[in-house]
Amino acid sequence: MDTVLYMALLHHPVTNKQGEVITTAVTNMDLHDMARLSRTYDLKAFYVVQPIELQRALVKRLLDYWQTGAGGQYNSTRKEAMKRVKLCVSLDEAVSEIGAEGGKPLLVGTSAKRRSEAVGFSELRGRMRSDKGPWLLLFGTGWGVDQDFLDKETDCVLEPVQGLSDYNHLSVRTAAAIILDRLLGDG
Amino acid sequence: MDTVLYMALLHHPVTNKQGEVITTAVTNMDLHDMARLSRTYDLKAFYVVQPIELQRALVKRLLDYWQTGAGGQYNSTRKEAMKRVKLCVSLDEAVSEIGAEGGKPLLVGTSAKRRSEAVGFSELRGRMRSDKGPWLLLFGTGWGVDQDFLDKETDCVLEPVQGLSDYNHLSVRTAAAIILDRLLGDG
Repeated sequence: MDTVLYMALLHHPVTNKQGEVITTAVTNMDLHDMARLSRTYDLKAFYVVQPIELQRALVKRLLDYWQTGAGGQYNSTRKEAMKRVKLCVSLDEAVSEIGAEGGKPLLVGTSAKRRSEAVGFSELRGRMRSDKGPWLLLFGTGWGVDQDFLDKETDCVLEPVQGLSDYNHLSVRTAAAIILDRLLGDG
Repeated sequence: MDTVLYMALLHHPVTNKQGEVITTAVTNMDLHDMARLSRTYDLKAFYVVQPIELQRALVKRLLDYWQTGAGGQYNSTRKEAMKRVKLCVSLDEAVSEIGAEGGKPLLVGTSAKRRSEAVGFSELRGRMRSDKGPWLLLFGTGWGVDQDFLDKETDCVLEPVQGLSDYNHLSVRTAAAIILDRLLGDG
């Protein structure tokens, strides 16, 4: 498939349990798991969006360790995955960078909440085959990307992952895995 | 779907990077992510198999916190997920417990390694619709379940998750997510 796909993990604007808009701290395992997914499904890059400077410094140190340092020496497959990770301060920065590479991306939001106008998996899968993009899939930490932000900033929002129950509380790591596989996999 | 499905996460016998059979320590996030998957895909239970007594004590404390303690009070959806987790010392113990509930389970191994006799996703999906089980899916920590153990102990081994590349280094959390969705999801 020659569709160009990126994903981004937002630490802001996301909501907390009470529905307030917050900025979250970085979870190490999100970066590793989603970097490995990016490599597996051959995404062009995985953007970690984090507005807090001290948090970005932490991520930078982590990326250095794996991309050019001792971590990558010890585990070369992890290095391959971590090389797809890019760090930026805002979604706008990621969108500009993608735009400079291959044109303005189509922004697809994800959410565990049901929204009346959500796009189904098979529909988006079809669209991604006819329109080569670039596409940018947005994932949220905390209790998910702020709904107002999804309304205003995205081209469409994907329907939630539904399993065999109405339970909609997957981790962002496992939700991203299922979403990428449904959109790109051949299983 | 009325097929009865369980999964187990093995901390032994799994291999390290050098291919030696070892016992791994528990990763907190494996338990949370896979518990949430169990609830999402309505598995009967998720067995954490850990032969080391001190490690089991740690898991027991974690489960108490979420199943009956303060964690479950704070986050009731996490409690729902964590209530599906069961702790045992060996795979035999899990198999006996399942056997006592609803008959000896069919054991399905998973592996990131290509094996000539592996079962495909659509084939297993079909089998799980005609044979209601119980089925028990085995996942490995570390570098995966020992291949000899898979040969000897399982009824079949599922083909690896293949993305859009030959990269086969997903985390067990995200691999389990994709596997459950491919076998049970309707996306």
